[in-house]
Amino acid sequence: MRLRSLLFAPAVRPDLLRKLPRAGADGVVIDCEDATPPGAKQDGRTNARTVGGELAAGGVAVFVRVNAVGTPWFDEDMRHGIPQGAAGVVVPMVEDRAQLDEVAAALVGRDGLSVVVGLETAAGVSRATSLLDHPVATAGYFGAEDFIADMGGVRTESNMEVLHARSTVALAGRLARVPVLDQVVVAFADGARFQREAAEARALGYAGKLCIHPSQVALAHGAFTPSPEEVAAARKLIVAYEQAEAGGQAVIVVDGRMIDGPLVSQARRVVASAE
Amino acid sequence: MRLRSLLFAPAVRPDLLRKLPRAGADGVVIDCEDATPPGAKQDGRTNARTVGGELAAGGVAVFVRVNAVGTPWFDEDMRHGIPQGAAGVVVPMVEDRAQLDEVAAALVGRDGLSVVVGLETAAGVSRATSLLDHPVATAGYFGAEDFIADMGGVRTESNMEVLHARSTVALAGRLARVPVLDQVVVAFADGARFQREAAEARALGYAGKLCIHPSQVALAHGAFTPSPEEVAAARKLIVAYEQAEAGGQAVIVVDGRMIDGPLVSQARRVVASAE
Amino acid sequence: MRLRSLLFAPAVRPDLLRKLPRAGADGVVIDCEDATPPGAKQDGRTNARTVGGELAAGGVAVFVRVNAVGTPWFDEDMRHGIPQGAAGVVVPMVEDRAQLDEVAAALVGRDGLSVVVGLETAAGVSRATSLLDHPVATAGYFGAEDFIADMGGVRTESNMEVLHARSTVALAGRLARVPVLDQVVVAFADGARFQREAAEARALGYAGKLCIHPSQVALAHGAFTPSPEEVAAARKLIVAYEQAEAGGQAVIVVDGRMIDGPLVSQARRVVASAE
Repeated sequence: MRLRSLLFAPAVRPDLLRKLPRAGADGVVIDCEDATPPGAKQDGRTNARTVGGELAAGGVAVFVRVNAVGTPWFDEDMRHGIPQGAAGVVVPMVEDRAQLDEVAAALVGRDGLSVVVGLETAAGVSRATSLLDHPVATAGYFGAEDFIADMGGVRTESNMEVLHARSTVALAGRLARVPVLDQVVVAFADGARFQREAAEARALGYAGKLCIHPSQVALAHGAFTPSPEEVAAARKLIVAYEQAEAGGQAVIVVDGRMIDGPLVSQARRVVASAE
Repeated sequence: MRLRSLLFAPAVRPDLLRKLPRAGADGVVIDCEDATPPGAKQDGRTNARTVGGELAAGGVAVFVRVNAVGTPWFDEDMRHGIPQGAAGVVVPMVEDRAQLDEVAAALVGRDGLSVVVGLETAAGVSRATSLLDHPVATAGYFGAEDFIADMGGVRTESNMEVLHARSTVALAGRLARVPVLDQVVVAFADGARFQREAAEARALGYAGKLCIHPSQVALAHGAFTPSPEEVAAARKLIVAYEQAEAGGQAVIVVDGRMIDGPLVSQARRVVASAE
Repeated sequence: MRLRSLLFAPAVRPDLLRKLPRAGADGVVIDCEDATPPGAKQDGRTNARTVGGELAAGGVAVFVRVNAVGTPWFDEDMRHGIPQGAAGVVVPMVEDRAQLDEVAAALVGRDGLSVVVGLETAAGVSRATSLLDHPVATAGYFGAEDFIADMGGVRTESNMEVLHARSTVALAGRLARVPVLDQVVVAFADGARFQREAAEARALGYAGKLCIHPSQVALAHGAFTPSPEEVAAARKLIVAYEQAEAGGQAVIVVDGRMIDGPLVSQARRVVASAE
């Protein structure tokens, strides 16, 4: 499954949930955690199951973000919050493998559900490789706001304060061979910032971004889908390489760059992801 | 104890030591290590004990930076260099837990002394979590000059060459639940650089900065104390959140930002640290 | 051996191989891997042995980059590709210590060959310390193009996407006490980029850079050799420090900077590396 975008909406807002598919995100997330106040957890869970079921029946990839393992709501969320036909579960604030064992136990008998592991605390980031390597994990995300709140730091537009953690999570995803999604842009009206962050994330190896507003979805797809220019350049590079290789040439220069195997692999991946 | 600033002065300069309290630092450090030449270690130690005792009697939080574990001066520094009423010891160049065991052994019978662990070599940074997690460690600091000298690198104003190590130490501090202090600005007359670095450090989660000149203390306090604007914004956010929560609202937008739990925790911390 | 520059040329281009010494690199690398197409591996190996032997007889430090351990070419490369008098072997794409055991086994009876370990995949970077610490490893390099291709990321001029990996490899080199060389600049005509990257690399603690074009060698030497101004400043600092120390002074200020032990060590290293 492509995960260029996961669009979140609060479980307590059935009106917003029903509008989720319009944005065309690769997956939608019904959020029973942060966006659902403690007093409304049961209502949220019910909406997740019922409205989520409607959306899934319509062919949408529906995820539910449950409350963290160990909270008073986790068990009920897993038992009664996951709709028929759901694509998966998003588990926030994961910090140790025992928590993922609990997720796996709660999913026994419910095959085929993806589990997106949220790494958004100091402990979660420091154990990123071991957590994403858990058999139940099919994807991960890095949560910058919660991570920096946990660190007692300050979020800045430079993203320098999260470069280490963001890089660590990207590397962990690659080692565990699961795709990872990049941090939310809280200032949802700031499209330029979203685009800048998405480009950074793609450079780091992220597959997509968490989205909290429909307008962010198109920006995510723009950033995580190779542009026609990139695809054209990749095709040109592959052709030049293959001709040169067939002709026995060793040093291959395309547009002033010396080309070898890894660049060709990358070009092939760009072409493949555009098809 | 708040540690926004630790102001260092050479143990061999009793005149400077007596002036230390004027700057209003959260702690003062009598430096028996770098700033005390090998030939003057005994004089330094004596000053640390006597002048340090005067300062402590006046209510100042007095620390002594001893020479590194394993140097010919460490034992005597611990035995005769720590004044009555001292707040703690700063141990430079820590590289393995056995060194902290030695510190703990030297402190037997002297309860209540803080131990600030200096991480300023490749080995120290690479073991930061395990070192700050030692029971004797109550705080840590990252020493950029020594670290980069040990790496055979070059210090630059960009701080890019230390971002990885600085981030690693911040994360280790959080995991071990001890506050960490950020690198010295050697160019003590460059206030703009100090402010820039302090803002970076606060964003990363540092609690304060090492200071080597009295003028740096106010800059540190300015950076590590939330501004009235930050406090006002935090209060506004908390009020808006609580009203919305009480009214059963799920999506809360303040000044164009979508607000949820972690942002509220952060806001509460800002308000608390300003009180 | 100084390793400010390792200049690569394709093993299938004997004309280019014979020109390699002209650039004055600290070492030259006959590349049987990326720059040699699969159909030409045997020819490349033969050139490496014969032309490499000529170059080595002329006093040049000759390395051969063999194909990765586990490829169909590795054994033959080690057996028949290393010329008489070679300085060493460059092993690409190293990911675990067992691969270095194979390298060591292949080198039994061939004492004195350096082994430069290529860290250029997610797995290689994540195990950098353990790999560079292997007894057979005498140096390492970080390969940004292959690393980012393996991560599924995108290379950018900012180098932000590789700062974490580049810093990790520099730290690993220091812990294992082997020099490390920095990433290739593929756009070989862009001298300004090479200089910028070389300065970044030197700041991080790298000893030199991989070069793929003769024009890059002088730039590497310029960046990794201290400038006359740096040497002069270092000498001045050392003299001032020694005079002050002899006079019993504790606080030493040179050009507005407070000077202590680590800065003096660094200054001494600068002076030594310029001699």
